Amino acid sequence: MLQLDDLDRAILKLLKEDARLTISEISEKLNKPESTIHFRIKKLQERGIIGRYTIILGETLRPKHIAFLILRVEKPVIEDFLERYLEYITKTLAMLPNVLMVAKSEEDKIIALVGDETQEKLEKFIEDNIKTIPTLKEVLVFPVRTFKKGGEIIGFLAGI
Amino acid sequence: MLQLDDLDRAILKLLKEDARLTISEISEKLNKPESTIHFRIKKLQERGIIGRYTIILGETLRPKHIAFLILRVEKPVIEDFLERYLEYITKTLAMLPNVLMVAKSEEDKIIALVGDETQEKLEKFIEDNIKTIPTLKEVLVFPVRTFKKGGEIIGFLAGI
Repeated sequence: MLQLDDLDRAILKLLKEDARLTISEISEKLNKPESTIHFRIKKLQERGIIGRYTIILGETLRPKHIAFLILRVEKPVIEDFLERYLEYITKTLAMLPNVLMVAKSEEDKIIALVGDETQEKLEKFIEDNIKTIPTLKEVLVFPVRTFKKGGEIIGFLAGI
Repeated sequence: MLQLDDLDRAILKLLKEDARLTISEISEKLNKPESTIHFRIKKLQERGIIGRYTIILGETLRPKHIAFLILRVEKPVIEDFLERYLEYITKTLAMLPNVLMVAKSEEDKIIALVGDETQEKLEKFIEDNIKTIPTLKEVLVFPVRTFKKGGEIIGFLAGI
Protein backbone atom coordinates (compact mmCIF):
# COMPACT_ATOMS: atom_id res chain seq x y z
CA MET A 1 0.00 0.00 0.00
CA LEU A 2 0.93 3.61 -0.51
CA GLN A 3 2.28 5.05 2.69
CA LEU A 4 3.08 8.72 2.78
CA ASP A 5 3.55 10.53 6.06
CA ASP A 6 3.32 14.24 6.76
CA LEU A 7 7.00 14.81 6.00
CA ASP A 8 6.72 13.10 2.60
CA ARG A 9 3.71 15.24 1.76
CA ALA A 10 5.41 18.42 2.91
CA ILE A 11 8.42 17.65 0.72
CA LEU A 12 6.21 16.90 -2.30
CA LYS A 13 4.32 20.16 -1.81
CA LEU A 14 7.54 22.18 -1.70
CA LEU A 15 8.92 20.46 -4.81
CA LYS A 16 5.64 21.01 -6.65
CA GLU A 17 5.97 24.75 -6.02
CA ASP A 18 9.66 24.88 -6.82
CA ALA A 19 11.53 21.78 -7.94
CA ARG A 20 14.84 23.66 -7.85
CA LEU A 21 14.89 23.85 -4.06
CA THR A 22 18.06 22.27 -2.72
CA ILE A 23 18.14 19.59 -0.02
CA SER A 24 19.51 22.19 2.39
CA GLU A 25 16.72 24.69 1.60
CA ILE A 26 14.06 22.02 2.13
CA SER A 27 15.80 20.91 5.30
CA GLU A 28 15.68 24.45 6.64
CA LYS A 29 12.05 25.05 5.65
CA LEU A 30 10.84 21.83 7.27
CA ASN A 31 13.25 21.91 10.17
CA LYS A 32 14.57 18.39 9.55
CA PRO A 33 18.15 17.15 9.04
CA GLU A 34 19.48 17.24 5.48
CA SER A 35 20.20 13.50 5.62
CA THR A 36 16.51 12.83 6.33
CA ILE A 37 15.36 15.03 3.44
CA HIS A 38 17.89 13.44 1.12
CA PHE A 39 16.74 9.94 2.09
CA ARG A 40 13.05 10.79 1.74
CA ILE A 41 13.43 12.33 -1.73
CA LYS A 42 15.47 9.33 -2.85
CA LYS A 43 12.69 7.02 -1.63
CA LEU A 44 9.95 9.14 -3.23
CA GLN A 45 11.79 8.87 -6.54
CA GLU A 46 12.49 5.15 -6.22
CA ARG A 47 8.86 4.43 -5.34
CA GLY A 48 7.76 6.38 -8.41
CA ILE A 49 5.78 8.85 -6.31
CA ILE A 50 7.83 11.60 -7.89
CA GLY A 51 7.37 10.71 -11.56
CA ARG A 52 9.72 13.28 -13.03
CA TYR A 53 10.95 16.87 -12.87
CA THR A 54 9.88 19.40 -15.49
CA ILE A 55 9.42 23.08 -16.30
CA ILE A 56 6.25 25.07 -16.82
CA LEU A 57 6.47 27.62 -19.60
CA GLY A 58 5.62 31.23 -18.73
CA GLU A 59 2.98 33.44 -20.33
CA THR A 60 4.99 34.30 -23.44
CA LEU A 61 4.99 30.80 -24.93
CA ARG A 62 1.45 29.85 -23.91
CA PRO A 63 -1.36 29.95 -26.46
CA LYS A 64 -3.60 32.84 -25.39
CA HIS A 65 -6.88 31.41 -26.66
CA ILE A 66 -7.85 27.91 -25.81
CA ALA A 67 -10.92 25.71 -26.07
CA PHE A 68 -12.11 22.28 -25.04
CA LEU A 69 -13.67 20.27 -27.81
CA ILE A 70 -16.09 17.37 -27.66
CA LEU A 71 -15.91 15.45 -30.94
CA ARG A 72 -18.35 12.80 -32.10
CA VAL A 73 -17.37 10.23 -34.66
CA GLU A 74 -19.70 8.82 -37.33
CA LYS A 75 -21.11 5.44 -36.42
CA PRO A 76 -19.65 3.11 -39.05
CA VAL A 77 -21.83 0.59 -40.89
CA ILE A 78 -19.62 -2.16 -39.56
CA GLU A 79 -19.68 -1.49 -35.84
CA ASP A 80 -16.21 -2.90 -35.23
CA PHE A 81 -14.76 -0.04 -37.26
CA LEU A 82 -15.70 2.53 -34.60
CA GLU A 83 -12.54 1.81 -32.62
CA ARG A 84 -10.47 2.22 -35.79
CA TYR A 85 -12.10 5.59 -36.50
CA LEU A 86 -11.41 6.73 -32.95
CA GLU A 87 -7.82 5.54 -33.19
CA TYR A 88 -7.31 7.31 -36.52
CA ILE A 89 -8.78 10.61 -35.35
CA THR A 90 -7.04 10.75 -31.99
CA LYS A 91 -3.73 9.88 -33.66
CA THR A 92 -4.24 12.59 -36.28
CA LEU A 93 -5.12 15.15 -33.61
CA ALA A 94 -2.17 14.19 -31.40
CA MET A 95 0.23 15.10 -34.20
CA LEU A 96 -1.06 18.67 -34.55
CA PRO A 97 0.90 21.20 -32.49
CA ASN A 98 -2.24 23.20 -31.68
CA VAL A 99 -3.73 20.17 -30.00
CA LEU A 100 -2.49 20.23 -26.41
CA MET A 101 -4.40 17.22 -25.15
CA VAL A 102 -6.54 14.51 -26.69
CA ALA A 103 -8.35 11.56 -25.14
CA LYS A 104 -10.90 8.91 -26.11
CA SER A 105 -14.07 9.14 -24.10
CA GLU A 106 -16.98 6.69 -24.08
CA GLU A 107 -18.59 5.27 -27.21
CA ASP A 108 -18.15 7.62 -30.17
CA LYS A 109 -16.69 10.59 -28.27
CA ILE A 110 -13.29 12.27 -28.16
CA ILE A 111 -12.17 15.12 -25.88
CA ALA A 112 -9.49 17.58 -26.96
CA LEU A 113 -7.85 20.78 -25.74
CA VAL A 114 -6.70 23.17 -28.46
CA GLY A 115 -5.00 26.56 -28.41
CA ASP A 116 -3.62 29.36 -30.55
CA GLU A 117 -2.35 32.93 -30.29
CA THR A 118 -5.57 34.65 -31.32
CA GLN A 119 -9.26 33.84 -31.40
CA GLU A 120 -9.28 34.06 -35.20
CA LYS A 121 -6.38 31.65 -35.59
CA LEU A 122 -7.98 29.21 -33.18
CA GLU A 123 -11.29 29.29 -35.03
CA LYS A 124 -9.52 28.85 -38.34
CA PHE A 125 -7.56 25.92 -36.97
CA ILE A 126 -10.75 24.22 -35.81
CA GLU A 127 -12.47 24.88 -39.16
CA ASP A 128 -9.56 23.88 -41.40
CA ASN A 129 -7.79 21.15 -39.45
CA ILE A 130 -10.38 19.56 -37.23
CA LYS A 131 -13.81 19.88 -38.82
CA THR A 132 -12.36 18.53 -42.07
CA ILE A 133 -11.23 15.22 -40.57
CA PRO A 134 -13.11 12.38 -42.31
CA THR A 135 -15.56 10.29 -40.25
CA LEU A 136 -16.04 13.17 -37.81
CA LYS A 137 -19.73 13.92 -37.30
CA GLU A 138 -19.88 16.73 -34.78
CA VAL A 139 -17.50 19.21 -33.10
CA LEU A 140 -18.68 21.04 -30.00
CA VAL A 141 -16.46 23.97 -29.02
CA PHE A 142 -16.19 25.24 -25.44
CA PRO A 143 -13.82 28.22 -25.36
CA VAL A 144 -12.08 28.86 -22.05
CA ARG A 145 -12.82 32.33 -20.73
CA THR A 146 -10.99 32.11 -17.39
CA PHE A 147 -9.43 29.33 -15.36
CA LYS A 148 -10.34 29.09 -11.69
CA LYS A 149 -8.10 26.09 -10.96
CA GLY A 150 -5.46 24.19 -12.89
CA GLY A 151 -4.81 26.91 -15.48
CA GLU A 152 -1.12 26.07 -15.39
CA ILE A 153 -1.82 23.03 -17.59
CA ILE A 154 -1.44 25.44 -20.50
CA GLY A 155 2.15 26.29 -19.58
CA PHE A 156 2.71 22.61 -18.91
CA LEU A 157 1.30 21.38 -22.23
CA ALA A 158 2.41 24.20 -24.53
CA GLY A 159 4.84 23.17 -27.24
CA ILE A 160 8.19 24.87 -27.77
CA MET B 1 8.82 40.29 -29.83
CA LEU B 2 9.63 36.84 -28.58
CA GLN B 3 12.90 35.67 -29.98
CA LEU B 4 13.94 32.12 -29.37
CA ASP B 5 16.64 30.49 -31.42
CA ASP B 6 17.31 26.80 -31.96
CA LEU B 7 19.59 26.60 -28.94
CA ASP B 8 16.95 28.13 -26.64
CA ARG B 9 14.38 25.66 -27.94
CA ALA B 10 16.75 22.72 -27.53
CA ILE B 11 17.45 23.72 -23.92
CA LEU B 12 13.74 24.12 -23.17
CA LYS B 13 12.98 20.70 -24.66
CA LEU B 14 15.64 19.03 -22.52
CA LEU B 15 14.43 20.77 -19.36
CA LYS B 16 10.83 19.81 -20.12
CA GLU B 17 11.88 16.16 -20.23
CA ASP B 18 14.09 16.38 -17.17
CA ALA B 19 14.44 19.60 -15.23
CA ARG B 20 17.14 18.08 -13.04
CA LEU B 21 19.70 18.04 -15.83
CA THR B 22 22.80 19.98 -14.79
CA ILE B 23 24.36 22.74 -16.85
CA SER B 24 27.23 20.41 -17.65
CA GLU B 25 24.90 17.62 -18.80
CA ILE B 26 23.00 20.00 -21.06
CA SER B 27 26.29 21.43 -22.33
CA GLU B 28 27.43 17.93 -23.26
CA LYS B 29 24.16 16.91 -24.92
CA LEU B 30 24.01 20.06 -27.06
CA ASN B 31 27.73 20.33 -27.63
CA LYS B 32 27.94 23.94 -26.42
CA PRO B 33 30.13 25.53 -23.71
CA GLU B 34 28.76 25.45 -20.15
CA SER B 35 29.00 29.24 -19.94
CA THR B 36 26.65 29.55 -22.93
CA ILE B 37 24.12 27.14 -21.47
CA HIS B 38 24.30 28.89 -18.11
CA PHE B 39 23.72 32.29 -19.72
CA ARG B 40 20.86 31.06 -21.88
CA ILE B 41 19.01 29.42 -18.99
CA LYS B 42 19.46 32.57 -16.90
CA LYS B 43 17.98 34.63 -19.75
CA LEU B 44 15.09 32.18 -20.30
CA GLN B 45 14.24 32.50 -16.62
CA GLU B 46 14.57 36.29 -16.54
CA ARG B 47 12.41 36.65 -19.62
CA GLY B 48 9.74 34.48 -18.00
CA ILE B 49 9.94 31.91 -20.77
CA ILE B 50 10.69 29.33 -18.11
CA GLY B 51 7.83 30.02 -15.72
CA ARG B 52 8.84 27.67 -12.95
CA TYR B 53 10.22 24.23 -12.11
CA THR B 54 7.96 21.51 -10.78
CA ILE B 55 7.45 17.77 -10.31
CA ILE B 56 4.96 15.43 -11.96
CA LEU B 57 3.55 12.81 -9.64
CA GLY B 58 3.87 9.18 -10.72
CA GLU B 59 1.08 6.66 -11.20
CA THR B 60 0.59 5.88 -7.52
CA LEU B 61 -0.77 9.29 -6.52
CA ARG B 62 -2.82 9.92 -9.67
CA PRO B 63 -6.58 9.42 -9.63
CA LYS B 64 -7.26 6.35 -11.79
CA HIS B 65 -10.66 7.40 -13.09
CA ILE B 66 -11.17 10.82 -14.50
CA ALA B 67 -13.83 12.67 -16.45
CA PHE B 68 -14.38 16.00 -18.15
CA LEU B 69 -17.59 17.74 -17.20
CA ILE B 70 -19.57 20.37 -19.02
CA LEU B 71 -21.81 22.17 -16.54
CA ARG B 72 -24.65 24.49 -17.38
CA VAL B 73 -25.90 27.06 -14.94
CA GLU B 74 -29.51 28.11 -14.54
CA LYS B 75 -30.32 31.37 -16.30
CA PRO B 76 -31.22 33.72 -13.45
CA VAL B 77 -34.34 35.92 -13.61
CA ILE B 78 -32.11 38.94 -13.21
CA GLU B 79 -29.61 38.42 -16.02
CA ASP B 80 -26.77 40.21 -14.23
CA PHE B 81 -26.76 37.43 -11.65
CA LEU B 82 -25.40 34.89 -14.15
CA GLU B 83 -21.82 35.99 -13.55
CA ARG B 84 -22.37 35.67 -9.80
CA TYR B 85 -23.72 32.14 -10.24
CA LEU B 86 -20.72 31.23 -12.39
CA GLU B 87 -18.34 32.74 -9.86
CA TYR B 88 -20.00 30.92 -6.96
CA ILE B 89 -19.97 27.53 -8.70
CA THR B 90 -16.42 27.71 -10.04
CA LYS B 91 -15.18 28.84 -6.62
CA THR B 92 -17.01 25.99 -4.90
CA LEU B 93 -15.64 23.48 -7.39
CA ALA B 94 -12.08 24.82 -7.11
CA MET B 95 -12.08 24.05 -3.37
CA LEU B 96 -12.92 20.36 -3.85
CA PRO B 97 -9.81 18.12 -3.96
CA ASN B 98 -11.40 15.83 -6.58
CA VAL B 99 -11.70 18.76 -8.95
CA LEU B 100 -8.38 18.97 -10.79
CA MET B 101 -9.25 21.82 -13.13
CA VAL B 102 -12.15 24.24 -13.51
CA ALA B 103 -12.75 27.05 -15.98
CA LYS B 104 -15.54 29.38 -17.05
CA SER B 105 -16.54 28.91 -20.66
CA GLU B 106 -18.92 31.04 -22.70
CA GLU B 107 -22.35 32.17 -21.50
CA ASP B 108 -23.74 29.75 -18.90
CA LYS B 109 -21.13 27.03 -19.23
CA ILE B 110 -18.34 25.71 -16.99
CA ILE B 111 -15.72 23.07 -17.83
CA ALA B 112 -14.20 20.85 -15.15
CA LEU B 113 -11.85 17.91 -14.84
CA VAL B 114 -12.56 15.54 -11.95
CA GLY B 115 -10.92 12.36 -10.73
CA ASP B 116 -11.03 9.63 -8.11
CA GLU B 117 -9.57 6.22 -7.32
CA THR B 118 -12.45 4.13 -8.62
CA GLN B 119 -15.32 4.56 -11.06
CA GLU B 120 -17.83 4.17 -8.22
CA LYS B 121 -16.19 6.86 -6.09
CA LEU B 122 -16.02 9.23 -9.05
CA GLU B 123 -19.69 8.72 -9.88
CA LYS B 124 -20.64 9.20 -6.23
CA PHE B 125 -18.56 12.38 -6.06
CA ILE B 126 -20.32 13.79 -9.13
CA GLU B 127 -23.75 12.82 -7.76
CA ASP B 128 -23.20 14.03 -4.19
CA ASN B 129 -20.87 17.01 -4.58
CA ILE B 130 -21.49 18.40 -8.02
CA LYS B 131 -25.05 17.66 -9.09
CA THR B 132 -26.26 19.02 -5.75
CA ILE B 133 -24.78 22.51 -6.25
CA PRO B 134 -27.61 25.06 -6.31
CA THR B 135 -28.27 26.97 -9.56
CA LEU B 136 -26.72 24.14 -11.60
CA LYS B 137 -29.03 23.03 -14.39
CA GLU B 138 -27.18 20.32 -16.27
CA VAL B 139 -24.06 18.19 -15.84
CA LEU B 140 -22.68 16.35 -18.86
CA VAL B 141 -20.07 13.71 -18.00
CA PHE B 142 -17.37 12.63 -20.45
CA PRO B 143 -15.25 9.92 -18.81
CA VAL B 144 -11.70 9.60 -20.10
CA ARG B 145 -11.03 6.12 -21.44
CA THR B 146 -7.47 6.66 -22.72
CA PHE B 147 -5.24 9.67 -23.30
CA LYS B 148 -3.51 9.94 -26.66
CA LYS B 149 -1.66 13.17 -25.82
CA GLY B 150 -1.19 15.28 -22.70
CA GLY B 151 -2.17 12.54 -20.25
CA GLU B 152 0.54 13.73 -17.88
CA ILE B 153 -1.72 16.62 -16.82
CA ILE B 154 -3.15 14.14 -14.31
CA GLY B 155 0.23 13.70 -12.58
CA PHE B 156 0.70 17.45 -12.85
CA LEU B 157 -2.67 18.39 -11.36
CA ALA B 158 -3.09 15.60 -8.79
CA GLY B 159 -3.20 16.78 -5.21
CA ILE B 160 -0.88 15.40 -2.54
